[in-house]
Amino acid sequence: MVRSRSQRIIARRFTAGDSTRCPDDLLVEEPLAIHLDDTQVSSTMRTPGHDFELAAGFCLSEGVLDGAPILGIRYCGTRAPVDSEFNIVSVSTGGLAPEPTPRLGSTTSSCGICGAEAIGELADRLQVLPAYEPWDPAFLLGLPRKAQEQQGLFGVTGASHAAGAFDRSGNLLVLREDIGRHNAVDKVVGRLLLDGRLPALDLALFVSGRASFEMVQKAWAGGFSALVAVSGPSSLAVATARRAGLTLVGFARNGDGSIYSPSSLV
Amino acid sequence: MVRSRSQRIIARRFTAGDSTRCPDDLLVEEPLAIHLDDTQVSSTMRTPGHDFELAAGFCLSEGVLDGAPILGIRYCGTRAPVDSEFNIVSVSTGGLAPEPTPRLGSTTSSCGICGAEAIGELADRLQVLPAYEPWDPAFLLGLPRKAQEQQGLFGVTGASHAAGAFDRSGNLLVLREDIGRHNAVDKVVGRLLLDGRLPALDLALFVSGRASFEMVQKAWAGGFSALVAVSGPSSLAVATARRAGLTLVGFARNGDGSIYSPSSLV
Repeated sequence: MVRSRSQRIIARRFTAGDSTRCPDDLLVEEPLAIHLDDTQVSSTMRTPGHDFELAAGFCLSEGVLDGAPILGIRYCGTRAPVDSEFNIVSVSTGGLAPEPTPRLGSTTSSCGICGAEAIGELADRLQVLPAYEPWDPAFLLGLPRKAQEQQGLFGVTGASHAAGAFDRSGNLLVLREDIGRHNAVDKVVGRLLLDGRLPALDLALFVSGRASFEMVQKAWAGGFSALVAVSGPSSLAVATARRAGLTLVGFARNGDGSIYSPSSLV
Repeated sequence: MVRSRSQRIIARRFTAGDSTRCPDDLLVEEPLAIHLDDTQVSSTMRTPGHDFELAAGFCLSEGVLDGAPILGIRYCGTRAPVDSEFNIVSVSTGGLAPEPTPRLGSTTSSCGICGAEAIGELADRLQVLPAYEPWDPAFLLGLPRKAQEQQGLFGVTGASHAAGAFDRSGNLLVLREDIGRHNAVDKVVGRLLLDGRLPALDLALFVSGRASFEMVQKAWAGGFSALVAVSGPSSLAVATARRAGLTLVGFARNGDGSIYSPSSLV
């Protein structure tokens, strides 16, 4: 079922002191619950569409698959379909995935966790990236413009984030848009996972927003060797990228930007 | 303890085809766990600072307080303070708050939830806002510029979101910045809560990003009568604002913008 990702309403638009009633295309936001085998592992507010990719990508990038194969993905609905039944997706590994563990930060009962420990948890399950040919900074800084040309939902609503995967020739293999920037990345990672295209060591991941810790986590989990963000990285994102060996570019706008990792390129 | 909210490193900056190594101030991101009485109710990636406000605001806006008074807020650390002990905050109600219930979307075990049901859940615990004097759209559209003048952390890092509370004279009562836009709002709501300043029916809430469902939820829970967002609202945000009776302004930039709610102003 294809569900609309934008919804037209009437709003009052103010420009230069004047106002008019005019059509306005809103980005659709709906809740989605993700189950792995019989356990709910996430609930997120997302833009409908590519829900199976979102579920697959989430399970991979958050580590809950733990190497188990995905045997099937389906919507929950068993009766006559109603909207709410398309807001829950079940990923099946036939019980091969381990019992889901709580997500980062919810594992500690009394003494907190610091950023270094958060990186350490990731490093325990993800290997440092294998050696790869260094990326040309000018090439990476040119990717956002290519992605922006394909952000059709943003063009309509002005409110969606995007993520995309580029190969070394600058081809955009997949681009996804969503109200949540984490969801957009999960949809890209999920598409590549379902296509048997991971790890993506030869690809660069583009994100339309900032590079926070969780974005670096998702890039690392997908095996990308570069992450290109239109906005700035956080302290923890830079430290994590350096630990992973990931090439990290921030503030990539109009061909300009900054490189934060690896140290050899700084 | 005052912890730094930015961290200076060296990055390589590319401008117009040239590159130089130069200092770069990163926005600090660290995990925070929030406990209510003896139960962990949240873990979030946040920028340190105003952690007690964040915890208080989260507990109010997510409904876990359920009307219980906050008797105290403290960091977890009982030994010599180390950083990680400042990454967990305990909010005490002396057991007066109900046993925490799972957050939206995680309550349903098998049949999903749709947007209308999500709004219904909110409406069950939050009353429609009392009558209030209509806001002047031109006044609301002028608030972002006033807030931006105070976004010092954004000026340094270029990577932080902001939220603020304005009175009807245009005075900025409180402004907070954080890597998470939800956190920035929770810090504002928490400050007002701890000051006995809620419900904030006479105040407008400013947010530097988009107006998603959760932002409207937080504005409604704080009793604000207006929400002014620099970016666009989602479909669910508009529907929720109309249900609450909240004035909702989006794309508020350079004095221009759009009004989505209440219907009488559209």
